Amino acid sequence: VLRSRRLIGLVLGLAVPLAMVFAEPTEAIYGFRIEGSAAQRELERRFDAQLSAASMAYRHASMSSAPNHVGSRHNRLNAESTLRNFREWGWKADIETFDVLYPTPERLELELIAPRHHRARLTEDPIAGGTAPADDTELLPAYLVFSADGDVTAPLVYVNYGLAEDYATLARLGISVRGKIVLARFGRGFRGLKPKLAHQQGAVGCILYSDPADDGYAAGDPYPNGGGRPASGVQRGSVLDLPVAAGDPLTPGVGSTRSAHRLPIEQATTVTKIPVLPISYGDARHFLAALGGPRAPESWRGGLPMTYHVGPGPARAHLLVKSRWAQQRLYNVIAELTGSEWPDQWIVRGNNRDAWVYGAWVALSGHSAMMEEAKAIAALVREGWRPRRTLVYASWDGEEAGLLGSTEWVETHASELQAKAALYVNTGANTRGFLEVSASPITARLVDEVASAVEDPQTRVSVRDRALAALQVRAFASGAGLVDIDQKSAALPIGDLGAGSDFTPFAQHIGIASIDLGFGGEEELIGVYHSAYDTYRHFERFGDPGHAYGVALAQTAGRLALRAANADVFPFEFATLADRVAEQVAGLHMLVQSMRERAITQRALVGRRAFQLAADPAKNLPFVPPEDPVPDLDLRPLDTAVERFAASARKYGSATVPASSDARDSVNERLQAFEQCMTHPDGLPGRPWYRHLLSVPGVSTGYEAATLPGIREAIEAGRWEEADVFVHRTSDTLKSCADRLDQATELLASGSLE
Amino acid sequence: VLRSRRLIGLVLGLAVPLAMVFAEPTEAIYGFRIEGSAAQRELERRFDAQLSAASMAYRHASMSSAPNHVGSRHNRLNAESTLRNFREWGWKADIETFDVLYPTPERLELELIAPRHHRARLTEDPIAGGTAPADDTELLPAYLVFSADGDVTAPLVYVNYGLAEDYATLARLGISVRGKIVLARFGRGFRGLKPKLAHQQGAVGCILYSDPADDGYAAGDPYPNGGGRPASGVQRGSVLDLPVAAGDPLTPGVGSTRSAHRLPIEQATTVTKIPVLPISYGDARHFLAALGGPRAPESWRGGLPMTYHVGPGPARAHLLVKSRWAQQRLYNVIAELTGSEWPDQWIVRGNNRDAWVYGAWVALSGHSAMMEEAKAIAALVREGWRPRRTLVYASWDGEEAGLLGSTEWVETHASELQAKAALYVNTGANTRGFLEVSASPITARLVDEVASAVEDPQTRVSVRDRALAALQVRAFASGAGLVDIDQKSAALPIGDLGAGSDFTPFAQHIGIASIDLGFGGEEELIGVYHSAYDTYRHFERFGDPGHAYGVALAQTAGRLALRAANADVFPFEFATLADRVAEQVAGLHMLVQSMRERAITQRALVGRRAFQLAADPAKNLPFVPPEDPVPDLDLRPLDTAVERFAASARKYGSATVPASSDARDSVNERLQAFEQCMTHPDGLPGRPWYRHLLSVPGVSTGYEAATLPGIREAIEAGRWEEADVFVHRTSDTLKSCADRLDQATELLASGSLE
Repeated sequence: VLRSRRLIGLVLGLAVPLAMVFAEPTEAIYGFRIEGSAAQRELERRFDAQLSAASMAYRHASMSSAPNHVGSRHNRLNAESTLRNFREWGWKADIETFDVLYPTPERLELELIAPRHHRARLTEDPIAGGTAPADDTELLPAYLVFSADGDVTAPLVYVNYGLAEDYATLARLGISVRGKIVLARFGRGFRGLKPKLAHQQGAVGCILYSDPADDGYAAGDPYPNGGGRPASGVQRGSVLDLPVAAGDPLTPGVGSTRSAHRLPIEQATTVTKIPVLPISYGDARHFLAALGGPRAPESWRGGLPMTYHVGPGPARAHLLVKSRWAQQRLYNVIAELTGSEWPDQWIVRGNNRDAWVYGAWVALSGHSAMMEEAKAIAALVREGWRPRRTLVYASWDGEEAGLLGSTEWVETHASELQAKAALYVNTGANTRGFLEVSASPITARLVDEVASAVEDPQTRVSVRDRALAALQVRAFASGAGLVDIDQKSAALPIGDLGAGSDFTPFAQHIGIASIDLGFGGEEELIGVYHSAYDTYRHFERFGDPGHAYGVALAQTAGRLALRAANADVFPFEFATLADRVAEQVAGLHMLVQSMRERAITQRALVGRRAFQLAADPAKNLPFVPPEDPVPDLDLRPLDTAVERFAASARKYGSATVPASSDARDSVNERLQAFEQCMTHPDGLPGRPWYRHLLSVPGVSTGYEAATLPGIREAIEAGRWEEADVFVHRTSDTLKSCADRLDQATELLASGSLE
Repeated sequence: VLRSRRLIGLVLGLAVPLAMVFAEPTEAIYGFRIEGSAAQRELERRFDAQLSAASMAYRHASMSSAPNHVGSRHNRLNAESTLRNFREWGWKADIETFDVLYPTPERLELELIAPRHHRARLTEDPIAGGTAPADDTELLPAYLVFSADGDVTAPLVYVNYGLAEDYATLARLGISVRGKIVLARFGRGFRGLKPKLAHQQGAVGCILYSDPADDGYAAGDPYPNGGGRPASGVQRGSVLDLPVAAGDPLTPGVGSTRSAHRLPIEQATTVTKIPVLPISYGDARHFLAALGGPRAPESWRGGLPMTYHVGPGPARAHLLVKSRWAQQRLYNVIAELTGSEWPDQWIVRGNNRDAWVYGAWVALSGHSAMMEEAKAIAALVREGWRPRRTLVYASWDGEEAGLLGSTEWVETHASELQAKAALYVNTGANTRGFLEVSASPITARLVDEVASAVEDPQTRVSVRDRALAALQVRAFASGAGLVDIDQKSAALPIGDLGAGSDFTPFAQHIGIASIDLGFGGEEELIGVYHSAYDTYRHFERFGDPGHAYGVALAQTAGRLALRAANADVFPFEFATLADRVAEQVAGLHMLVQSMRERAITQRALVGRRAFQLAADPAKNLPFVPPEDPVPDLDLRPLDTAVERFAASARKYGSATVPASSDARDSVNERLQAFEQCMTHPDGLPGRPWYRHLLSVPGVSTGYEAATLPGIREAIEAGRWEEADVFVHRTSDTLKSCADRLDQATELLASGSLE
């Protein structure tokens, strides 16, 4: 039955101790008829039996034994061994290559030139015991890929995390970064936003450093005593403008095949406009200590033993970044098991294989789980089973540099994927702890049921119930009451899809329903993120000792793929989406209302000179101007559309899986591309590559999702006409989704009557 | 008129720009007839004209030029010069001495004995430039007065701020401090609570240190570059159990006169039970770095460049505290100007004169302002003016050790004070910034009007309007809307009286209406609090350059005294008190409700094993037991009493100052001791010395006020029968206050009819 189990879940899942819920279910699996459910569960048991922590660990150790950046020898070897594995196990597999713009650093320099001289070392020290960094000839210096070349000398300004709110704080202090080099700490927002915002503010260079308050000694003992970042550890990473577009900056929207039209580099909008370099806190402290000017605001203080000042000056720095801008080849490994019943309905599963250095945590931990799934599935096939739909497993290259491998593949095969792919399941770094899922809301019930079917390796309850227990205890600690807690934990909560991994081209560019999942929360601090200390030895001590959660990940992600591949009707559900959008629209109402009240209050306080009187006259702070009043914005079209979609979702929820296979086929046809109804061909303002209207990376956060982004970001920026356009566009979109859903419901009803 | 100006204030004070409000008022001063108001304002202008920043600075520099602890030579000299000043100016003045128990350190030792050896230095380094600490033979070592003697060796445990919630956190981690020495940082709660709680938890010793996150380099540049605490700076202070009783521990409740009965030291309940020593972060880091065990929770992290661990061990420490327990003499200087009309109605004004070392900030900054007031008032007297009521100015000794001088004086003269004193006005440390007031609510209107009449030296609006602007901007930053902001700033908000200065014996022991005030918020970090670096040179750079706010303080505190001394009818007002108590009672309803919901939620989560499932199994955390359910507590008697008092307050508010002087005399008689109706002779549970039923120091916070403490603290501790007793006692008390107020109102009405 497709009938909602929400209320039953509320009673079953919560009125009895969580541990008792983990028992053999006898109901139908969502999307399956009761007849097929037992067979599916039996299949999953056999799948589990094939998963081996030992073989996962072996493959993980081997793949993370040498530097794995794009273009490295070992990354290429890993592609070949991955291909070999797939083929040996019985998958149809190939390597698909793309040639992308890829700058490789040639000269990196940073020095303090006033009030004293200090040359940044820019190197990561060997760790006693010899675990890392290895004496590897292929080891690249720490850098940020897609930084512009540049050679600049200017006074320094400390800008905290370098986000929009930090520049607002600087403005209140009367400090400009125009013509300056900014020094920002990593964290809070996507690192690529930092040089972008710095450039927009007029800065000529950008230094990013890892403050010990964030992932160094303040957060936990530095490696090798603990998982924290050592004084010389540097966070590498991409500074591509990913919230504008992912993938090769020279081929936005199309695959970087040999014949693709490529932009001249000067027109590559997602490359930074100013040079940017990452440094350790061992280097950063010399620059921070040389700053004068006002004391940094309290929330700007880091963990170094000094008083943080903002500047500008007297510290002046010289920064040089020079790369070789050439084409580099990416190696995606793509494996397929053709579906027995619906070969043109695809379930795609992926994890990236490239890494900043060794990449044991990020992200070969997830890759090794994915390969274990592929091995187990192949074993089932050798025993005579076939998936009803086609399974595609992908080992992506170039994720770390900007989702390059997945994006070029998706752009190349966009039409076919839109016609065939129904679901993309993504993983990345995986460690000990609790299941965490971000996903298209239509997959919420699939996720909830799969999580109920996987046992947590430490507590022997389901990973769903363990995740819910953690959520409930957190909610309790924050002061929530039982009713709130129970409402929020009726099903495993899933987050909105933001950014940070290979689901982006699938979900947000071409509208394929996607799930991103992983375990975490009980690892020791990953203070070696994107550094040469991210090694297998570090991971097995601090990440997931014994790979127990690697196995749990394979069980979970594998079940998602297997159920989606075998279900009679795609296990999509629409009430969660309806609820989610209704909440988001309510949030927009509140946002506009609070912005309006804020502006009224702010203008009244300006009128009373309250800001002047509250300020310290000795600090000579700039005048606080009145904010613009907030005009009316009519959100009613959205309210109506949300109600309309909710009604359609309810109707669909009360239908049952039809007995007629023709009816099922027709329903599946309607549902395969359902997520695409939430996209718009024109995309979002200033970033047409992003076409999803409900959930994309926030332009001002980078990693976190912005929901209803066309409307929300226009409101936040005070672009009221644009907000109005997107209110109507989103409303129309929701209505057309409702139409499509009604068609599916009618087909279900007609099939059930046969 | 006594008619409430609340609504008018709302319109006048807020609908027009704040700066325009500061104009010559023509209305009657509250408590004055219109005829006398102009004369009073003229008097205050003449008073202002006598105040000199230069003479204040001269006296301040001189008094803070040598160590001023109890028993020091210079503190005695300061008493004598203060006496001389009062007498020269024309006050009737004397020194009144008390002999109190006063331990003086003989041997202080602290060493780390495992896993390595380190001997704590326990000394404050000289500062380049020679400002402090001086090479003064009288300089005492840094210590905590009223620490028990002891010589203990035990493993260390880091307990964060060492408050009740920190021990709850330790319990959740499964860590006990029984038999251990605890290492706690200064801050958050009164330092005396820390050894008390540590002892209650079974610890055998206690070390307190100043973490650089709180008042060292993290908060601001260390002295001499800025106002922050240098690495060797130590916070001295009292660890007397002040929330139980202030004053000489051998004479609780009676004055330490020569003939007083004294307890044997063993029976002195307010002395600590375990040895406790204060250290600098220069010393503390060696002990913290030697701790193992779990990583400290995130909110426990300080500013030292290391990972904070909780222990216990492997760090072991040896701690020795040995004092000479002898009697020491206190020198209070008490000066009087007898009232011309009502000599038996007293207005008392005080500030302490003793200090931990030099004490330029704490608290000779306030003392020098008070002396300037006394000088100016004496000048008015020489010009022929006399206060209508008696003014008593007091320079207290021994405040820093436990409010010794004021408490012994109040205890000695309790009957006379209860019969005569109508108001006590207290000050302490004073710096640049915004007026901050804690007071008995019946003084709210007096405070608001006085603050409206004093000009802020930097902005030229009233200190009231400047304080309100700061409050409004803070409220705006925290997200409040205009309506909220305007409601909260209809009058200058006053805090509840907690602890920390000499108002305690007046307000909380014998029920004299009290006001504690000072300026602050624009000083550079006072990281030299209670250290040898608290010098005049430090103060004049970072505290109140030019003593502009010293003058503002003298203007404000002096006006409070002068208006209270001259008013036709005591300028007390009762609507604020009624509102305040109504809010507090509403808070109690919410407290009980939220405790009940919390217990229900917690028990449900325990029943579901949620705490176990959410915990990391590798950490072996203890079982979380279910909390006790919250029984019914009938708060209705309190609701009724609050309504009754509010009605009486309204009636009083609509009366006018009577024309008949007999009627005024009768009203004044009823009002003089009004605050005493809020006390109960049995005092509070476990601390009978505290008799006020509405606002006293919290037993679990030490500094902060606990309102309706008999009820609130019983509820918080789950002592439900005691809570019920205090619900009835407080209700009866409020009703008898209402009766007394009704009598005053009737007298006003009868006098007005003449």
